[in-house]
Amino acid sequence: MTQRMKGVLAPVLTPVKPDLSADIGRFVRHCRWLLDHGCSGLAPFGTSSEANSFSTDERVAMLEALVAGGIPAAQLMPGTGCSALSDTVRLTAHAVKLGCGGVLMLPPFYYKNIPDDGLYRYFADVIERVGDARLNIYLYHIPQMANVPLSLGLIERLIKAYPSTVVGIKDSAGDWNNTQALLKAFAPDFAIFTGKDAFLLQTLQGGGAGCITACANINPHGLNALYQAARSTTAEELQAQITKLVNLIDGRAYFVATYKGIVAHYAADPGWLTVRPPILELTPQQKNDLARDLTAFGFTMPSLDAADRHSRPAA
Amino acid sequence: MTQRMKGVLAPVLTPVKPDLSADIGRFVRHCRWLLDHGCSGLAPFGTSSEANSFSTDERVAMLEALVAGGIPAAQLMPGTGCSALSDTVRLTAHAVKLGCGGVLMLPPFYYKNIPDDGLYRYFADVIERVGDARLNIYLYHIPQMANVPLSLGLIERLIKAYPSTVVGIKDSAGDWNNTQALLKAFAPDFAIFTGKDAFLLQTLQGGGAGCITACANINPHGLNALYQAARSTTAEELQAQITKLVNLIDGRAYFVATYKGIVAHYAADPGWLTVRPPILELTPQQKNDLARDLTAFGFTMPSLDAADRHSRPAA
Repeated sequence: MTQRMKGVLAPVLTPVKPDLSADIGRFVRHCRWLLDHGCSGLAPFGTSSEANSFSTDERVAMLEALVAGGIPAAQLMPGTGCSALSDTVRLTAHAVKLGCGGVLMLPPFYYKNIPDDGLYRYFADVIERVGDARLNIYLYHIPQMANVPLSLGLIERLIKAYPSTVVGIKDSAGDWNNTQALLKAFAPDFAIFTGKDAFLLQTLQGGGAGCITACANINPHGLNALYQAARSTTAEELQAQITKLVNLIDGRAYFVATYKGIVAHYAADPGWLTVRPPILELTPQQKNDLARDLTAFGFTMPSLDAADRHSRPAA
Repeated sequence: MTQRMKGVLAPVLTPVKPDLSADIGRFVRHCRWLLDHGCSGLAPFGTSSEANSFSTDERVAMLEALVAGGIPAAQLMPGTGCSALSDTVRLTAHAVKLGCGGVLMLPPFYYKNIPDDGLYRYFADVIERVGDARLNIYLYHIPQMANVPLSLGLIERLIKAYPSTVVGIKDSAGDWNNTQALLKAFAPDFAIFTGKDAFLLQTLQGGGAGCITACANINPHGLNALYQAARSTTAEELQAQITKLVNLIDGRAYFVATYKGIVAHYAADPGWLTVRPPILELTPQQKNDLARDLTAFGFTMPSLDAADRHSRPAA
């Protein structure tokens, strides 16, 4: 029986230096902070990570740096789904070799209106080429970004053909009807993560595994409190607070820039603001408004300040 | 003054072996045939080329094989636009170093709803990082696939900032109003290629540079005949024939598979049928129907038969 991942996972933000190369030191420190403050696992190279702004060479080096920096591979679910079959195979095989607990796999996202047969053949081909029984794939459904949806029929076919390999999904569509249909069809054996903070409690109540959300980068403690208390009387109130927070954050600027801005503010570390084009970093006005509103809300990031940051050894 | 490319360019189909690796021999031979039969240039690694199904390492090796195989670099406009900034920089710098006449550049196509400022910063960053005065960029507008449109405002800004680098565009949106607006705003100094065969004559009449269409892979002679005769009395009839042909071909299966099927049929070479997932190759029924309909139409591909193919030296 494969060990499924569960709980609160962060699609880890990728800090970059002024020259736009990955900032490995800040990356490893942020991962440690996440695991120390409520994340049960990490999903580096997700959409919030700007994964598709980095080459496969860069992604291989960054994943190796995390493991070398002491992040347990078993808690890692790196994104490995690329547009190119050969890139997906390379990243997936590399993650398995490093001992990662799973991989989060986007469908090939350039070609549109591909029939399920074509997507099935793609995933099957990746699995056969990687050819490793340790591989645990979590599918990644994010139609508003990839424009390549994963249908229930396709998922069912993949589970039937590869029951010990295709073990879960992240549903980031933001459509509760779809998450509910997934839960009814495949939970709890198949691990269903929501990509929307507001759906965490409902997902858990429906037999889902947890969440993988951008907000886990700044609120792992809050999300984990709800995860742990999902069957208690405080659950509804914890969910309400989480939903209020994301509603406060969303819609200001591109979400990746916003979340980097929040870390920059609470860590008093402007180095966190930088993003890779085509994403734009926050304007000074956006930055100030965000800090003001989060302060008014009473939001905090425990133990994340400049002093703490500098006290940790560099990777 | 930069030398602009013009005429009929083929987004070269990428033949693959049964193991899905690039078939360099067939690739070089097909490129030679295209240049011998009406193409003034070649745009390998376009959408029809399944470019985004190949890694940057594979694309670098394939482009080098074309030049080593005797294809003049000055006639090459390889696709170099990837989702990742670092991949785009790498492929673009490599193409310039090889002496390519231009590059065809998709916008970064994973993130959606990116403002023009972000896309501008991305293209500007690529240009600055490549840092080579020989670079000629042809932008690639294909919103139905990339889901990242290039607005007139963005194009104007790029031309103003980099007049000797941002020298043209391929408009594959299939919307004549957009092509017309581009022609009015930027032709003839800025080289405007249509991606739709049915628009070739109108594009040329509006001061455009030519076409880059999947159909150039099988009908370079027909398209070039129209290109050469665009101001003659036969132009309308030549355009009508071209439009009839693409209407006969379109809508049967995924277009990449269909065009590979046509080459396979006329070259009597089933090795051409193979595609990389997620694209599916033609079914036997689709293959037979296609051959029957093209024969009834009277379509031919000059000098492309098994005997000819085998008489050419392998790359």
